[in-house]
Amino acid sequence: MHPRRELTVELGDRSYPIYIGEGLLDDAGELFAQRGISKKSPLMIITDENVAERHLEKLQTVLVAAGFDVSTAIIKPGESSKSLAVLESLVTKALDAGLDRKSTIVALGGGVVGDLAGFVAASYMRGLKFVQVPTTILAHDSSVGGKVAVNHPLAKNIIGAFHQPELVLYDLNTLQTLPKREISAGLSEVVKHGLIWDPAFVQWCDENAERLTSLDADALGYALFMGCSVKAEVVSKDERENDLRAILNLGHTIGHALEAVAGYKELLHGEAISIGMVGAARLAVKLGASEDVYTVTKRVLSQVGLPVRLPEHLDTDAIMEAMMHDKKFAEGTMVFIVPIEIGKVEINKSVSAALIREIVEQLKQEAV
Amino acid sequence: MHPRRELTVELGDRSYPIYIGEGLLDDAGELFAQRGISKKSPLMIITDENVAERHLEKLQTVLVAAGFDVSTAIIKPGESSKSLAVLESLVTKALDAGLDRKSTIVALGGGVVGDLAGFVAASYMRGLKFVQVPTTILAHDSSVGGKVAVNHPLAKNIIGAFHQPELVLYDLNTLQTLPKREISAGLSEVVKHGLIWDPAFVQWCDENAERLTSLDADALGYALFMGCSVKAEVVSKDERENDLRAILNLGHTIGHALEAVAGYKELLHGEAISIGMVGAARLAVKLGASEDVYTVTKRVLSQVGLPVRLPEHLDTDAIMEAMMHDKKFAEGTMVFIVPIEIGKVEINKSVSAALIREIVEQLKQEAV
Repeated sequence: MHPRRELTVELGDRSYPIYIGEGLLDDAGELFAQRGISKKSPLMIITDENVAERHLEKLQTVLVAAGFDVSTAIIKPGESSKSLAVLESLVTKALDAGLDRKSTIVALGGGVVGDLAGFVAASYMRGLKFVQVPTTILAHDSSVGGKVAVNHPLAKNIIGAFHQPELVLYDLNTLQTLPKREISAGLSEVVKHGLIWDPAFVQWCDENAERLTSLDADALGYALFMGCSVKAEVVSKDERENDLRAILNLGHTIGHALEAVAGYKELLHGEAISIGMVGAARLAVKLGASEDVYTVTKRVLSQVGLPVRLPEHLDTDAIMEAMMHDKKFAEGTMVFIVPIEIGKVEINKSVSAALIREIVEQLKQEAV
Repeated sequence: MHPRRELTVELGDRSYPIYIGEGLLDDAGELFAQRGISKKSPLMIITDENVAERHLEKLQTVLVAAGFDVSTAIIKPGESSKSLAVLESLVTKALDAGLDRKSTIVALGGGVVGDLAGFVAASYMRGLKFVQVPTTILAHDSSVGGKVAVNHPLAKNIIGAFHQPELVLYDLNTLQTLPKREISAGLSEVVKHGLIWDPAFVQWCDENAERLTSLDADALGYALFMGCSVKAEVVSKDERENDLRAILNLGHTIGHALEAVAGYKELLHGEAISIGMVGAARLAVKLGASEDVYTVTKRVLSQVGLPVRLPEHLDTDAIMEAMMHDKKFAEGTMVFIVPIEIGKVEINKSVSAALIREIVEQLKQEAV
């Protein structure tokens, strides 16, 4: 077995490990078996066309050699696959492959694959076991914590479940083929985990931005370990987002609205969240935080190659409207995650829409 | 408040009450509030066209008078509404009505409405609170225990969740307009709960069949209380169907296959299950149980007006094929719930397909 970093998401009898290291796909058979994945019932790997080309044969070969009964389903890449129609087609495949209640779904890919395959696992026969094999940096976030979902034409991630995986298997080698833009987009959530929880890690990101964007394996392994650790700790304390877990939404209220308005294509998720975090930092300063919160947030995000300015052609009214539809608004109140200092956030439940509109306008003028 | 029978489904912090009595719709406002249903977030009643005509105005008026923010969604009656397409349209309505994470979904109707509305509640924003207001006898079964789902063209209830309601509110007055055929079909699951758990209750059903089919309120209230009690006890011990809960599937392996082959229309669910239970009793006798198991099972079901013979034109090969797709087959083994005596069942995991085929053939010859 290859050397690896390990951590555990503590959730009582639903606790599970996250393994991070180079070459871990080779160890998938052994690691799956250790976690009690059944070799008797068929297992299904769900992946997308791009990832299939690079990594499916490897994972499939390893699992078959270890005695698993493996079938596969390949979806089109991109957010548009997170639909009920694709869910239905995957259920067809699962039925055809004979998946039963002891079967396991393996998500091999980024966040889209993980969210979609996870919701198949959550809902097929009312719930199968599930393994996350993330192949993007961004997915270090979505693969931990059990939030799975598909989109509705009117709202992102609106149909879903909390369904925890049995394990998360992170092979750093799969990240080596990522395009530059996706590397930066992925680092957005890594930086976010620092911003909400760990000032020292934010500083480390600031100092190691160059190593991260060039995919230095040791730096990347450490950053993903740290990002996953923050996520795991928050999820352990509040699995179903009753309170604390909401802090993970730093930058997401504006970010989701930008994605919706830009059509999920112009802006990658991480890019939209980056702009959203700059907006949240601006909001924090307006509400009394030190100017540093804004300058450091903006600098670190820029350093790792992320956009910090909102594309001017995106309509402010449409952005405001999209936020109203977003699920972060409970009982009519507008909720924002506000970074009161670097490494510490507050949930502010009474932010006025007018103030947010002002910030959206300012984000269009942001100096880069 | 009206007098009522009460029982509790014991599931730790997810425990909930079942209320059974005449006129309970009048008390809905008070009972919802007692269970912590939010008056600040919009609530949505999901029902079908038939039930809407009879009971929607009443429930809506009572809830509005009690201060709830009520919206409604009306689906077409029948099994074909349990689809992902209808789920998507209900999510559209929920978004338009502004449902947020503190909102509640109320299922007013029979099993179809309960299963569908329950899956909307389980998946919208990853889970809302949920109230069951069953209006059929059959729904005494489906409204308790948290199994919710929609169908896939190839398999019934294959996409779903375990999502427990906050309460079950059973107004016996809503049953008074049920057609005769649906009364009998509903009693099928009532009798089933006796057959798996309580020989004295089976005898009571045998002796009170006439009162039940004529909807004598006291007899019906008692029978639903007893049926729900068995269901609640089994669910309390095994919420997610790891073992014990499977006994609730008595008659369902054959029954589901019959529904699938007959196209969900020729046979009502309760009718298909009735034939399935006669089949299970025949199987039990073949495996060594007393002949009584078969004669009593068949007699009680006949007494309450249910079919006990399989319609001859249904193709045996198609029935066998449908069973193979059914989710009761874990890891390739054919599982049957076998009534080894009246009031007691066993889970038999090694029944041969050949034996089941023989029983299907015999069910077509059953004397009535």
